[in-house]
Amino acid sequence: MLTLTTFRSVPSFAAGYVRDLRVRWALEEAGLPYQLRLLAFEEAALPAYRKEQPFSQVPMLQDGELTLFESGAILLHLGERCPLLLPQDAHARAQVTVWMFAALSSVEPYLAELVTLDLFHAGEDWVAGARPSAEAMALKRLRDLDEWLAGRDWLAGEFSAADILMCTVLRLLDGMDLVERFGRLSAYRDRCMERPAFRKALADQLALYAQTSQAA
Amino acid sequence: MLTLTTFRSVPSFAAGYVRDLRVRWALEEAGLPYQLRLLAFEEAALPAYRKEQPFSQVPMLQDGELTLFESGAILLHLGERCPLLLPQDAHARAQVTVWMFAALSSVEPYLAELVTLDLFHAGEDWVAGARPSAEAMALKRLRDLDEWLAGRDWLAGEFSAADILMCTVLRLLDGMDLVERFGRLSAYRDRCMERPAFRKALADQLALYAQTSQAA
Repeated sequence: MLTLTTFRSVPSFAAGYVRDLRVRWALEEAGLPYQLRLLAFEEAALPAYRKEQPFSQVPMLQDGELTLFESGAILLHLGERCPLLLPQDAHARAQVTVWMFAALSSVEPYLAELVTLDLFHAGEDWVAGARPSAEAMALKRLRDLDEWLAGRDWLAGEFSAADILMCTVLRLLDGMDLVERFGRLSAYRDRCMERPAFRKALADQLALYAQTSQAA
Repeated sequence: MLTLTTFRSVPSFAAGYVRDLRVRWALEEAGLPYQLRLLAFEEAALPAYRKEQPFSQVPMLQDGELTLFESGAILLHLGERCPLLLPQDAHARAQVTVWMFAALSSVEPYLAELVTLDLFHAGEDWVAGARPSAEAMALKRLRDLDEWLAGRDWLAGEFSAADILMCTVLRLLDGMDLVERFGRLSAYRDRCMERPAFRKALADQLALYAQTSQAA
């Protein structure tokens, strides 16, 4: 049995955006059943959890004897079971891994920086000075991606784990009206989000946090 | 033949820190010979290059029919040829990929943010406001790593591609006296840098840029 570790409850702005969504989505695409292990925020900081996850983060995935963290590594692992996530042909596989790392290394940090400014530093007096260059960096990456998507439905051939990562990265900017400036890119994000596996994963995460918020 | 694409020349602060170092180092560890394809900065912005590398970045690696970018994906690919970089045993392999993604997703963005502030925004009046929280985030990740390294020589069992990525990530902070606050972590970084393959890779990159700077 596969066991996915995530937080038991999160602040309301994070519901629908917790990174376990990537793993839930991949598991739905692969048709693999899983159970949840729910963690209180405070538990993530304790030595017992930090021995498994040194950054006190979620998600983690337990697959028999194997315990993995980092959503990229988890998706790569699930890809070994499911060629839809990670094709077996060497050429196609290389392109998918390229785009998995691109989503997490070349796009996410720039988008996350904007979210950090707007969400965690809102109102601090230096933010107005920091924001223009951060937004310019994010927009450059969005423009690069929009250009890459000319004539492509997915980042690397068929739909793959790379699209799961990139779509969830783009969703960091929900409500900021930035992705929407790029026609191909926003159509791509919407195409990802129309997949039944995404909808199921999102609904499941939202249902959990609706429940735990009521209980809180 | 393997062909590594990198910049023909770089500003002096970047010599020794261009990300092709990760690939050079991995190639030296694997004992794989390679040739260079040198790119002018201006060429990286041209459509011909952006068809191969949509973010106008280096490094790229050409391996026969395969062309890859993203240093993480390139190291994963080289790992298929070289078990020292990426072990074949499923458990060991999973731990190495976890730490490859951890280096690039959970550590590098926080360290790179500090470098961006100090190097690219030095003197702007908002930086003094932005820096404390950026430094706190970076220090948290360094502390997490230092704790993980208790009783470990390398991140995941034996030396692997994960250590190549993490060491080059830590080197982003060279001269900032932050890694040096953590005994195990700085000893780990030094242990990585003592490897003959690292020394050869670094010497080769420095030699190229010494040469092209003289020519400029």
